[in-house]
Amino acid sequence: MERVPVLKIGDILLVSIQVDMSDQTAVQLQEDLAERIVATGCHGVIIDITALDIVDSFVGRMLSTIASISKVLDAETVVVGMRPAVAITLVELGLSLNGIRTALNVERGMELIAAALPDDYDFADADDEPDDDTTATT
Amino acid sequence: MERVPVLKIGDILLVSIQVDMSDQTAVQLQEDLAERIVATGCHGVIIDITALDIVDSFVGRMLSTIASISKVLDAETVVVGMRPAVAITLVELGLSLNGIRTALNVERGMELIAAALPDDYDFADADDEPDDDTTATT
Repeated sequence: MERVPVLKIGDILLVSIQVDMSDQTAVQLQEDLAERIVATGCHGVIIDITALDIVDSFVGRMLSTIASISKVLDAETVVVGMRPAVAITLVELGLSLNGIRTALNVERGMELIAAALPDDYDFADADDEPDDDTTATT
Repeated sequence: MERVPVLKIGDILLVSIQVDMSDQTAVQLQEDLAERIVATGCHGVIIDITALDIVDSFVGRMLSTIASISKVLDAETVVVGMRPAVAITLVELGLSLNGIRTALNVERGMELIAAALPDDYDFADADDEPDDDTTATT
């Protein structure tokens, strides 16, 4: 059985979906992710769908489910890397990605997750990029 | 055709191999990676093989080729996430991953790459085009 790997990077779990998701693969991914969130205490989940040509209702529902599970476990989910054609098809089909936040790429997704955390949050493992712009966002 | 996505995270390009590599997919990945290294000026390439049950001589050679190409373009390559069974098989088959550095997971791989960079390297400049360094160093 195909199994989608979950990679830990600092405070974030990264999943890159490249294979066709079967029922079983989807359930396995949800379980793996939930377990990793609890085991690592990560506050963010980034799901990269660059490799997907199509996001149908099955994949859409899977993404929503993952976002909901993560939310309960105190982690933000961001879907990144959506192709323009996928976005167009989603809208045309009337599929809304309920409760899912999106970002253009992994880096923007990381920024989104970091912004959702309290200001005094201590990134134990996060890399120390100098914040050259410390202006308060509204 | 399957295409393996290349994700940029800070100064590093991350590739998670999950599909069976064909000749064409491997060549495409090499081209994509080389282009992204030049376009982004990244100094590190991390290849995650968590999803691979088997690393045969074809995949081994592909990894070596990617490492060599990256080296020429001034980027370190680290292979991460190798399963215990894969490591055992590699040794039993006498396959050596020539010129390839390995690490246990993505975070250790990032540390390896960071350690290979000069101490005063500024990650904030990763996006900038590598200039010809005509200015006097302070």
